[in-house]
Amino acid sequence: MFLPSFQRSSVDGFAVRASDTFGASESMPGFLNMIGKVEMGQEVRDAISPGQTMYVPTGGMLPANADAMLMIEHAEENDDLICAYKQIAPLENVIQVGEDFTKGALLFKKGTKIRSQEIGALAANGITEVSVYRKPVLAYLSTGDEIVPSDISELPLGKIRDMNAVTIESAAREMGCDFIYGGIIKDEGDALQKAAAEFLSKSDCLILSGGSSVGTKDYSVGVLDSLGSPGVYVHGISIKPGKPTIIGSADGKPVIGLPGHPASALVIFQTIGSKIVNLLRGATESTTATVYAKSSKKIASAVGRTDYIRVTLTKKDNFYFAEPIHGKSGLISTLVECNGLLYIPENKEGIEKDEIAEVVLQ
Amino acid sequence: MFLPSFQRSSVDGFAVRASDTFGASESMPGFLNMIGKVEMGQEVRDAISPGQTMYVPTGGMLPANADAMLMIEHAEENDDLICAYKQIAPLENVIQVGEDFTKGALLFKKGTKIRSQEIGALAANGITEVSVYRKPVLAYLSTGDEIVPSDISELPLGKIRDMNAVTIESAAREMGCDFIYGGIIKDEGDALQKAAAEFLSKSDCLILSGGSSVGTKDYSVGVLDSLGSPGVYVHGISIKPGKPTIIGSADGKPVIGLPGHPASALVIFQTIGSKIVNLLRGATESTTATVYAKSSKKIASAVGRTDYIRVTLTKKDNFYFAEPIHGKSGLISTLVECNGLLYIPENKEGIEKDEIAEVVLQ
Repeated sequence: MFLPSFQRSSVDGFAVRASDTFGASESMPGFLNMIGKVEMGQEVRDAISPGQTMYVPTGGMLPANADAMLMIEHAEENDDLICAYKQIAPLENVIQVGEDFTKGALLFKKGTKIRSQEIGALAANGITEVSVYRKPVLAYLSTGDEIVPSDISELPLGKIRDMNAVTIESAAREMGCDFIYGGIIKDEGDALQKAAAEFLSKSDCLILSGGSSVGTKDYSVGVLDSLGSPGVYVHGISIKPGKPTIIGSADGKPVIGLPGHPASALVIFQTIGSKIVNLLRGATESTTATVYAKSSKKIASAVGRTDYIRVTLTKKDNFYFAEPIHGKSGLISTLVECNGLLYIPENKEGIEKDEIAEVVLQ
Repeated sequence: MFLPSFQRSSVDGFAVRASDTFGASESMPGFLNMIGKVEMGQEVRDAISPGQTMYVPTGGMLPANADAMLMIEHAEENDDLICAYKQIAPLENVIQVGEDFTKGALLFKKGTKIRSQEIGALAANGITEVSVYRKPVLAYLSTGDEIVPSDISELPLGKIRDMNAVTIESAAREMGCDFIYGGIIKDEGDALQKAAAEFLSKSDCLILSGGSSVGTKDYSVGVLDSLGSPGVYVHGISIKPGKPTIIGSADGKPVIGLPGHPASALVIFQTIGSKIVNLLRGATESTTATVYAKSSKKIASAVGRTDYIRVTLTKKDNFYFAEPIHGKSGLISTLVECNGLLYIPENKEGIEKDEIAEVVLQ
């Protein structure tokens, strides 16, 4: 398939042999003889001879022998005599056969995210169905004796509502995943083991939230390790927030233990989890949008630790500026305030005032 | 509702009165008497007296009188005697009552996009339902005698497939809209008038594609003008690609005539259409992600005209670089290649090599 499949006008005007307009100007117009008008969508069987022209609307097909379009703004019509007030070059205002898509050419590569324009390119070529990676199914279990369902109106002292389930579900769906919520599991080995095995079998990736610190009642590592081979290979990462993260693999399926702190859980899922999701989706490129911004303040960070600092981004004078948001890393309210996460790589001892840093858009 | 509703530990360790640790160090530990262990999710009714401590896991509730947490890494346990190897400040490693959310405080403003963290903030507060703007319904009609359905396998000469319908549908759904496709309408006044009135009545915003240039068979302006008051107020905008755009309003509903060129239609919908959609959605902030990039080439532009140049963005040395993609503005293939639209404002006579410009992420 060549697209366009015919020589197509990109303007309203007159199809010409460009050479017939050479020398034409406002003061010295050229003259052409109009032999007809092309209708939109019409297959044109006419040809023009030297000195002849046909009217063609935007998107219309050019007659044979025409190689350029004279815009209507540069012409005057007197019955069938057209005055050309401008000389035009061959191929001017014309889209050639195959200029957009050539037969046998690759539309886009495997692993490309199908955006609006890719859908359009498929439709232009008459392709209305295409094989895609199916949506990864993420299964999610909340763990911890302190977790109660979100819809509890009176919160008992010592308890917190299961907000991680909804934040991670929302982020997962935004990444193009399906999501299965497995409920709140007591911090007790057997129950967790049973639920984890069940929900791993229903999904492409199991996520546990909470239960990944070194507290005595945290069975997550053992459970994730037992689900399949090779088991847990990361327990604890040098990222703030998000230190007590667990990453492993059970017989080819990734398993993730997210920190229990809501802010840490979301940041780790957006930064590390998104990379795992991209692999499951077959995406070849990162889908995380980042900008570069000048930090409005000096920000300290320990060497050997990656930091994601919540910031408010503003635009000024062709630059982004990042203002760190004050507050502890465990708080969700500061995640609500922020529209960016400023990234401090592990090899850096913080960011100086006005230094440029990469910021993940939120 | 105060969140947390109890003084909460952010580490595994020992709840202390900070003053009991003052002066403690590796070489000169302080000694504390452990009177019990707090379980996760437990409402703690104990209080500590001077010199006493209790074990509290991450996320657990502190006993009364405790005002800080000594991390387990900085302590040693010998039966019920705890050696503190570090002095800690009041409130260290503790999230105070109400520190995340205070009763009566605004969670976020009307018009805020509900991201994963906003959903989390709602859930944390036990709010499982919230009033939102409903999704705007966009109705869409393709016009033009040259347009045939996308699923036609053999394309007759002079015809093109209706790719705009699918690109605009995809972009609209990505913006959070519902979409009604009204089909392909012949470029003929009465049929278009009837279809436009019908689909406007079913939607919050009517979009016509094609039929907005000055070609003789283009009835769009007249039809859009006739649908209601005040009618069309913009016909033709100084944006490239996208010049023959129509914008109007019919009895309170926006009506848009998009250019017929697929690339122009998509760019105008993403840049102008998105602003109209945001108004319909009640969004108070732009949802268009942009970055600043250095242009790798000089790009010409006419003063008085806004240009959106297709570019390939790459990251290098804490900066984005934008490489313009060669090709006519009507082509969809160049939109497939690009991952950014470089914005040249109307008051600029182009962009110099290495000049910084704003780029809309694609």
